[in-house]
Amino acid sequence: MNLHIAPVQHVPEIHPGMNLGECLRGALSRSGLELERHDILAVTQKIVSKAEGRIVDLRDVTPSAYSASLARRMSKDPRLVEVVLRESRRIVRMRGEVLICETHHGFICANAGVDESNVEAAESVTLLPENPDRSARSLAHALACGVIITDTFGRVWREGLVDTAIGIARIPPFIDFRGKTDPYGHRLRVTLLAAADALAAAAGLAMGKTSGTPAALIRGFEWEENEETGTAALLRPAEKDLFL
Amino acid sequence: MNLHIAPVQHVPEIHPGMNLGECLRGALSRSGLELERHDILAVTQKIVSKAEGRIVDLRDVTPSAYSASLARRMSKDPRLVEVVLRESRRIVRMRGEVLICETHHGFICANAGVDESNVEAAESVTLLPENPDRSARSLAHALACGVIITDTFGRVWREGLVDTAIGIARIPPFIDFRGKTDPYGHRLRVTLLAAADALAAAAGLAMGKTSGTPAALIRGFEWEENEETGTAALLRPAEKDLFL
Repeated sequence: MNLHIAPVQHVPEIHPGMNLGECLRGALSRSGLELERHDILAVTQKIVSKAEGRIVDLRDVTPSAYSASLARRMSKDPRLVEVVLRESRRIVRMRGEVLICETHHGFICANAGVDESNVEAAESVTLLPENPDRSARSLAHALACGVIITDTFGRVWREGLVDTAIGIARIPPFIDFRGKTDPYGHRLRVTLLAAADALAAAAGLAMGKTSGTPAALIRGFEWEENEETGTAALLRPAEKDLFL
Repeated sequence: MNLHIAPVQHVPEIHPGMNLGECLRGALSRSGLELERHDILAVTQKIVSKAEGRIVDLRDVTPSAYSASLARRMSKDPRLVEVVLRESRRIVRMRGEVLICETHHGFICANAGVDESNVEAAESVTLLPENPDRSARSLAHALACGVIITDTFGRVWREGLVDTAIGIARIPPFIDFRGKTDPYGHRLRVTLLAAADALAAAAGLAMGKTSGTPAALIRGFEWEENEETGTAALLRPAEKDLFL
């Protein structure tokens, strides 16, 4: 399939309570992009969190004794550590300045997705959306397209970060090759290709990180609409993981 | 940046000793694609390995006592296990039928990249190219473009496989945001975006797994040529990894 990924420019500064679907519709139009059937909009977590008011002013946070002690050992802001722990179901690894957590959604990422970049207000951080699949469904409904909400995660074994799907609507998480054969009749080794993550990764490149471009339009991916879709299927349960 | 990823069709069946650059040039032409400045060709490991003769007929393999015992416990072909161990620097995890190895190149993947799918001859498997960066450089020289050699790897924590860069030429492995600031003047949390892996992932979707399309043309990625590039920078040394 031919894939085309275009950055969506002219997205206004997003504040809590704004209608993100309307904002993105306007930005698409100002970018000269018109949504077509089977288009997918990739949207960064950051603007979804802002629209949903998932912003914490660190000046309002009182760190617990544990957060303060952890912060001292990790050379981090104790208020940030407090927020990270509140967003975490489990601390997966801590070493040096790195705090890798499992969020209440089940995502495993640095600082439980709590992030201070691309936030307007001083001393404020964003949290991940409370339910990113629900956020994606809401945008998909408003814009009548597939939606991927992305965040930028580190990986095990490999350096560098990649954008990853943390919320999806309408599109399937995987392309499923189970039971398919190659042109020579062999059963395929690749059974489930994590399509939503691959699209998120490419959309992240198209958006960049410094250009104020928090969305990208993905065209050409072939998919069948699935109202039951979600990112849960992309999360490997801890008991099945070889590395936990 | 606008990204466009097009599958390269009409690639002939590749046999050892064939000039892969010439084959891909012909396939591009038959696909109606003309290489432009800053285009990148993503090519699956499979056809590179075939062209380089990295094929092993399992009927020629005598498993060691250790391979035979391991194979029995894992319900695998002992000859396959023997080949996997020969390709491995280290076994990273073994559980059930899953054998995750670090290859001599430093890649961590199932079965050390040894694979029986998409191989014409019965009872034959392909090995990863001996030096995929060198293979990429050779193709980049022949075709005057950037090159990514891809393979499909599993991930920790997340279900599903994604295509990953195992060899690169000319293009940088990362987009480097170190020292850059967001529109509000904050230092960016994201420092190195693993661009080669993100492009490989998207190219893998464009190629599919069953369609006999072992290459894709990537257009629109902005990069500066780097003759010193390679995938080594994408591999996190074990002593720096939090999960080994």
